[in-house]
Amino acid sequence: MNYVKKQQFTIENYTLENGKSIPVTLGYETYGELNEEKSNVILVPHYFSGTSHAAGKYTPEDPNPGYWNDLIGPGKAVDTNKFFVISTDNLANVQVKNPNVITTGPRSINPKTGKIWGLDFPAFTYRDMAGIQHEFLTKQLGINKLYGVMGASAGGFISLHWAVNYPEKVERMIGVITNPQNPILTSLNVTQQGMRAIALDPNWKEGVYQDGQEPTEGLHLAVQMMNTGAFTPEFYETTYPRDSKEQGPYQDYKVPTSYEKQVAKAIESGSAFVDASHWYYTCRATMMHDIAHGQESLETALEKITAKVLMVSCTSDLLQPTVYNREMIEIMKTQEKQVELYEFDSLKGHLAGILETHLFREKIAEFLI
Amino acid sequence: MNYVKKQQFTIENYTLENGKSIPVTLGYETYGELNEEKSNVILVPHYFSGTSHAAGKYTPEDPNPGYWNDLIGPGKAVDTNKFFVISTDNLANVQVKNPNVITTGPRSINPKTGKIWGLDFPAFTYRDMAGIQHEFLTKQLGINKLYGVMGASAGGFISLHWAVNYPEKVERMIGVITNPQNPILTSLNVTQQGMRAIALDPNWKEGVYQDGQEPTEGLHLAVQMMNTGAFTPEFYETTYPRDSKEQGPYQDYKVPTSYEKQVAKAIESGSAFVDASHWYYTCRATMMHDIAHGQESLETALEKITAKVLMVSCTSDLLQPTVYNREMIEIMKTQEKQVELYEFDSLKGHLAGILETHLFREKIAEFLI
Repeated sequence: MNYVKKQQFTIENYTLENGKSIPVTLGYETYGELNEEKSNVILVPHYFSGTSHAAGKYTPEDPNPGYWNDLIGPGKAVDTNKFFVISTDNLANVQVKNPNVITTGPRSINPKTGKIWGLDFPAFTYRDMAGIQHEFLTKQLGINKLYGVMGASAGGFISLHWAVNYPEKVERMIGVITNPQNPILTSLNVTQQGMRAIALDPNWKEGVYQDGQEPTEGLHLAVQMMNTGAFTPEFYETTYPRDSKEQGPYQDYKVPTSYEKQVAKAIESGSAFVDASHWYYTCRATMMHDIAHGQESLETALEKITAKVLMVSCTSDLLQPTVYNREMIEIMKTQEKQVELYEFDSLKGHLAGILETHLFREKIAEFLI
Repeated sequence: MNYVKKQQFTIENYTLENGKSIPVTLGYETYGELNEEKSNVILVPHYFSGTSHAAGKYTPEDPNPGYWNDLIGPGKAVDTNKFFVISTDNLANVQVKNPNVITTGPRSINPKTGKIWGLDFPAFTYRDMAGIQHEFLTKQLGINKLYGVMGASAGGFISLHWAVNYPEKVERMIGVITNPQNPILTSLNVTQQGMRAIALDPNWKEGVYQDGQEPTEGLHLAVQMMNTGAFTPEFYETTYPRDSKEQGPYQDYKVPTSYEKQVAKAIESGSAFVDASHWYYTCRATMMHDIAHGQESLETALEKITAKVLMVSCTSDLLQPTVYNREMIEIMKTQEKQVELYEFDSLKGHLAGILETHLFREKIAEFLI
């Protein structure tokens, strides 16, 4: 297998759906070869805390292949002997400190002031992300049709916006652990509440903190909210087991329990590359995800889709519950669309869409034939 | 029906399970009449944000009867023509500002210093709450046996501690939307994370804030965490619906969505009587709930129970998932205990245990015969 190289693209001036313009530079990766007709392209937008590193390794020694490496590669469900797969970083990618992430967001320099954007960075949506990818693919790469677009969670949000807004360019859409509208409860309990946790941190300073004086406590709380939402009670119970014998936390409530210490360690190491203001903006974009925004109804939005659609949902997913996938599929069936829902179960809940691809990869392979 | 009167009891010096001693004064209410043999007593400990006002009204005009008024009263499932029902306020009752709540907690005066306890108030557990009620009932009211003890959620935690620690005094135990151990995920996502939200508020000042300068933002965030955990996605989707037509929040992320405004209003009005430091301590007690604490195992703790047991669980409950009730019942069946699990479903999730008693009251009536 070839090793993966991060590349980047720039759009000098991109106008967001709210009318505000920003310069955009984002990283991207590709796997496989583009064929002459440019007809074998599969776009893979990434999830909330993911990056454009969807598959492969950077070096032979690289211990961490891309997040969907079990799904994407030569001979795999998304077969890179056949397909040319592209993945881009999102605007305000939360892992802005990751050397393999290239993104534009509130931590970037506002060219008009020469200073960090902070909260002056405009609100953006996942529809904007689809628009940016569309401009990059069509104007810079000359790709006018996608064999498929597929993504997990927020990557699925972007995929759905592709299918709704560029229907003539999308032949197949796969949405994994995702929905056409972010559920209200999810908008509150992991995104709005996360934003509020960050904003409560005295170091937040409206997003213009200095390096080394970052709102780390608020950020770690926000990241933990996402983590506790993305798994199931059973997963937590077995991964971070209680110790009924410990006495310290009963003597003094300032003494953390053993499972709190373990969780804190996992959150801290998982947040090493994460910036609070990028997390904040990504929360907001996630909250606002609604393919019906600006449309007559959800039905009207779904009616625009012409792609063949596969939705993949984990029935223990608490962030993107299967019930909303079922509603979407029901609507689209009455619209006589080619649409299918594949349900699976896993104690990993929402994150099974990333961590347990073996539970649905055959379905994806079959759908992409 | 007679009107309800708040009463109070005091224990000069109560020694908590961690060895620390505090003076305790708590409110209580009773419904029905104690019989001569003192054999018709049902104790009803209250849930996290509840109070001793379990049933009845204070005046004819009182618009808000007690929280389980549909369950407790003359001719009802818990028939006060037959039973003498007692409910006490908890230590550190979160509604310390409610004129009908009498409690001792971090907002009380530490008699040794003449100042508010704040975080010098000792950590306590729901086992301590059972112990305090036990001392009150036996030493002050001369009640040596409970016909039953029953409670919802944390009220069920206390009921379970009664059944484990005073087995000879408990004839029947009913646990509604509750479990023998607070699930790890619940301990994190609504209690530990709520404590951290409060502590992040610059007004927190380690719990010794002045009236009028309270950590209200942190508290409201913590209360919202509890609220989003206690209902289901479907409940939120219909109670606080999205408005796909609104533009403001897409123009500027500082503009709240219509559903955020509605939720904020509900949380604010629901928190009018709530104190942050009492919420903080109640979170901690909830986190630490584990009937196996200090025992060999969960099995060992359950083995001690001699009461006839009924557990009532809502299958959509995300805070106290039915899966742990099933585990408890399975263990107790192998121990040849008289135990039964009643499952019901409701889109109200956890809170169905308070708000939808019509879904299980017949079962309770039957169990209490």
